[in-house]
Amino acid sequence: MNLNLEEISKKCRGDILTMTTVAQSGHPGGSMSSIDILVSLYSFARVFPNDPWNEDRDRIIVSHGHISPAVYSTLAAYGFINREEVLTGFRHPSSIFEGHITRGIPGVEWTTGNLGQGLSAGVGMALAGKLKNKDYHVYVVMSDGESAKGQVAEARRTANKYNLDNLTVIIDYNDIQISGRAREIMYVDLKKEYEAAGWNTLEINGHDFEQILSALKIAKNDGKPTAIIAHTIIGKGVSFMEDTPKYHGKPLSIEEFKKAIQELGLNIDIDKYIENRKKLPISEHKKLLLKYDVNINKGEFRTYTEKTDNRSALGRAIADLALINDNVVAVDCDLKSSVKLDFLDKERKDRLIEIGVQEHNAAALAGALSVEGFITFFADFGVFGIDETFNQHRLNAINNTNLKVVVTHCGTDVGEDGKTHHALNYVSAPLSWFGFKVIVPADPNQTDRAVRYVASEYGNFVIAMGRSKLEPIKKEDGSIFFDENYEFKYGKIDILRDGDDIVIITMGSIIPPALKAVDELRNEGIKVGLLNVSCPLDLDEEVLTRYTRNKVIVIEDHNVYNGLGTLIENKLFNLKIIPDKFVKIGIDRFPVSGNSNYLFKIYGFDSDSIKNKVKEILED
Amino acid sequence: MNLNLEEISKKCRGDILTMTTVAQSGHPGGSMSSIDILVSLYSFARVFPNDPWNEDRDRIIVSHGHISPAVYSTLAAYGFINREEVLTGFRHPSSIFEGHITRGIPGVEWTTGNLGQGLSAGVGMALAGKLKNKDYHVYVVMSDGESAKGQVAEARRTANKYNLDNLTVIIDYNDIQISGRAREIMYVDLKKEYEAAGWNTLEINGHDFEQILSALKIAKNDGKPTAIIAHTIIGKGVSFMEDTPKYHGKPLSIEEFKKAIQELGLNIDIDKYIENRKKLPISEHKKLLLKYDVNINKGEFRTYTEKTDNRSALGRAIADLALINDNVVAVDCDLKSSVKLDFLDKERKDRLIEIGVQEHNAAALAGALSVEGFITFFADFGVFGIDETFNQHRLNAINNTNLKVVVTHCGTDVGEDGKTHHALNYVSAPLSWFGFKVIVPADPNQTDRAVRYVASEYGNFVIAMGRSKLEPIKKEDGSIFFDENYEFKYGKIDILRDGDDIVIITMGSIIPPALKAVDELRNEGIKVGLLNVSCPLDLDEEVLTRYTRNKVIVIEDHNVYNGLGTLIENKLFNLKIIPDKFVKIGIDRFPVSGNSNYLFKIYGFDSDSIKNKVKEILED
Repeated sequence: MNLNLEEISKKCRGDILTMTTVAQSGHPGGSMSSIDILVSLYSFARVFPNDPWNEDRDRIIVSHGHISPAVYSTLAAYGFINREEVLTGFRHPSSIFEGHITRGIPGVEWTTGNLGQGLSAGVGMALAGKLKNKDYHVYVVMSDGESAKGQVAEARRTANKYNLDNLTVIIDYNDIQISGRAREIMYVDLKKEYEAAGWNTLEINGHDFEQILSALKIAKNDGKPTAIIAHTIIGKGVSFMEDTPKYHGKPLSIEEFKKAIQELGLNIDIDKYIENRKKLPISEHKKLLLKYDVNINKGEFRTYTEKTDNRSALGRAIADLALINDNVVAVDCDLKSSVKLDFLDKERKDRLIEIGVQEHNAAALAGALSVEGFITFFADFGVFGIDETFNQHRLNAINNTNLKVVVTHCGTDVGEDGKTHHALNYVSAPLSWFGFKVIVPADPNQTDRAVRYVASEYGNFVIAMGRSKLEPIKKEDGSIFFDENYEFKYGKIDILRDGDDIVIITMGSIIPPALKAVDELRNEGIKVGLLNVSCPLDLDEEVLTRYTRNKVIVIEDHNVYNGLGTLIENKLFNLKIIPDKFVKIGIDRFPVSGNSNYLFKIYGFDSDSIKNKVKEILED
Repeated sequence: MNLNLEEISKKCRGDILTMTTVAQSGHPGGSMSSIDILVSLYSFARVFPNDPWNEDRDRIIVSHGHISPAVYSTLAAYGFINREEVLTGFRHPSSIFEGHITRGIPGVEWTTGNLGQGLSAGVGMALAGKLKNKDYHVYVVMSDGESAKGQVAEARRTANKYNLDNLTVIIDYNDIQISGRAREIMYVDLKKEYEAAGWNTLEINGHDFEQILSALKIAKNDGKPTAIIAHTIIGKGVSFMEDTPKYHGKPLSIEEFKKAIQELGLNIDIDKYIENRKKLPISEHKKLLLKYDVNINKGEFRTYTEKTDNRSALGRAIADLALINDNVVAVDCDLKSSVKLDFLDKERKDRLIEIGVQEHNAAALAGALSVEGFITFFADFGVFGIDETFNQHRLNAINNTNLKVVVTHCGTDVGEDGKTHHALNYVSAPLSWFGFKVIVPADPNQTDRAVRYVASEYGNFVIAMGRSKLEPIKKEDGSIFFDENYEFKYGKIDILRDGDDIVIITMGSIIPPALKAVDELRNEGIKVGLLNVSCPLDLDEEVLTRYTRNKVIVIEDHNVYNGLGTLIENKLFNLKIIPDKFVKIGIDRFPVSGNSNYLFKIYGFDSDSIKNKVKEILED
């Protein structure tokens, strides 16, 4: 068997060099140092080339996604993918074999490339295995350079906390990163750090198949998460490439290639691939968007008639869902009483994943849990769940996850905690994560329905809310607006009050003072329309067109430079509508700390300020 | 002396309870566990209440900024601030004594509140001390709960790498965080983790003054960065508060307060403060924006006449500046050859700070270096320097730093590395960091001047660029557009070509193909105007008004939903200008991997696509 692996590895080395030279792009150096590990791992693990997404498969995540040539050559060697296609199309826009490995290619579990984030995904999948009572094992292959990333330390501790004995990490320790020796760039004592986090560690020669296989066997059965530190040589297998940083991100020239292939004792007709590549169309390949059918019972709606904070309606709805669906989980970052996951904690403790103050890891592992069939709520304060984890969500979006980011304490409604805690980008940031949808519910009833709605739809959502208790919105006749028959419809603008002297467009925490202002003005004979935009990224053109010809005020407890107001401006500009008067009210600087009632007054969000602004505009 | 400290601590405990009860908001529990540490530390450290910003002062950073009551009471006890003002104004909008401690309050070095980020700031200040040959010591006080944050691990290793023996961390180990026991929420083996990173560690009773002072003395002189693990009790000093999580973020009622004060043997007229607080105005306090005069020699401009990548012009200019100014540093995350800090590395190695794959820590410590008088360039790929470090820059902005975030490899111009590496938010994200300015230079000459310009201006800037080599822009007569006399002027739109059949507005990497298209169309008799917007966040209204009445195409290698095009839409909407035709071209989905020439073709950025689009619009 070992002889066989040696043969396979040698061929893979040839393919690594072929595809990078054909593409004239890519990372051969690290690919050559990792290849013996990958070839061993894919032979050792329970994987199914002809049924790659079999539920019982072991999961293999390669965190240093730039060694895609090594991954692709291994997958081709074991029959997951077509070798000719990879050698021809690697890094070509029409090919699925992108520069960094992409989830959806048979055998690839997670899109990586931004270093130090793969272990979190592995932890998520290992946790999912425990929650599903599946006996699959999760392997994460990563580089030494990326081991410095703090998120790795977070993931490590999480694996220890949840006793993830179904998780093995293999670190390709070639001691070379872009800028020089890894131990000099930023020294990480891998052994001590993993052991400090309660892991078992093994050290091996990463080019010795017997050692690799034996370590994998020990790791699988030692009852602990295990880190295998595999000492390797960058460029291994070709004399002039070995231990040379130069080939980290640089392919060989044709001349070098020929020399290398000869040294490997292989025979590859590179010209054929070069010629075939020229025939590829200059167009985008079809997107690989793995997803699954969501199967969920939305449960009984709750209708609130008393003043309630949206976050209680959120936490209540999540617990409701988890009580009647086994596939609902929530991830918390030491804020369970604030984000109201304490309902879930009391009623379905096994579905609450507590990660502590480790938001990057939490966001990434939540994404991974969600692709494992769990409808996953990642609950946090807005500043942590949006701003701090901006790139983790971008990567989740790239992975086409099924994540529900539910953030509370948004806006100045947080009050006294001040500017470090005022989340002001909950609408704008998700615009950067293609495919994410945003919902800002207006009251506890809309929150209840929005939570049940997002649980039933595959895809990534943000639900953002403030902190304060809000009066359930009522119609003019005093009955509940979002009543027991109300179902959430994504993209619908709610006309809370009709009126055409002037129209107020707003969302979230501003609804109560706006409604109060509108109703009081009505008593003074001023007819103000009030629109609730719960889906700011997908504006209802018909309603907007109808209500924005005259005078418009947009108010938002959000950054005024990139929030609801600007999105409406963009929409109206494209509809070629210029209202008679258009005023935006929002936050244009870091706010101060103070009771949210005071802050609402200072920033123009309270009902008196709104009434005054309406009168000022009407008198203008 | 110890008796004295005990007295001071007791009074501080009274003040902690007073200010939180008066404000009916805040975090008394952790304040009571940290207070003995703070009172000891401010007595031990070289600080100057009457000259708080003295250059030779020891720096004290409190990372768990929510224990502001402990910090304020200590500062009041030692005469840094006015006690009456704190007790009355704590967490009131008109008071500088916000919920989380704020840089600029005498004795407060860094605004904190988002946990786990203070140690990075401390590392930055300690590094600055070494670079300046100052013998001040840096102290970071932090909590146990936040020690789980990955950024702490990053900062720890950095301190070891740079032998920061002038850095001491004191951890308030009260073993309580919001959701329960710290060791249960997410276990961190503090001693082992710090020792794995090469630190000295000491364990003490955090309520024993002798032990605290003796540990501080050892830490100062042991020739290593040192972590003091101080075992404490939350709520310490008041029997019914001790070891009770309830008081983490909840103030005492008046009744509880009276009981507690009696137990402490103090006499505080709380009614006075409650009454005085009512008289405070409901308005924002004056912002505390510490800054300094920038003293820099901009050096000789370099004028490029040959095809050059902007990043080489960037790296060259940074090295030029560092060669003639001692106060210029650059921070790298293992990409020095790509972001072209290798010039600096060769010519002024002592000014290149290499942090490895630890972007969060790097961004935060760069901010701290910048407030220590260093004009600090934080160089990275766009996805890491913008997306991954989104919240770190938000916190830098809150701290009013003097940071120059210089990001390369932006947009699809990165090419084959694919969607994980395509930075598409380099214009939009900084809009969330109030005060940040963005520059997207058009060619190496504008890059050279922009770098020298930002170095000479106090404040936070992003300079964003692609990867490819660009032809220096030429005028129609063939001479260099940004020639040796050109100086960068923030906010100016450059009219690269005049023409009014249609106007193309663009920036950065799109300039070369746009210019080619415009010049070729001119030969066909079509007069196309070409505007270069290097400052997308501050649009020149006069030029825009002049050029946008007719037909407009905005092209950007950026997210089309929140970039240059939408900013222009917002501006035109507010100017009430609706062009005859307005077309936006940009990225609306995660792009594929491929040679940037191919990608430019696919996404409509190459000169042929641009020419076709112009003709299509004109024929429409």
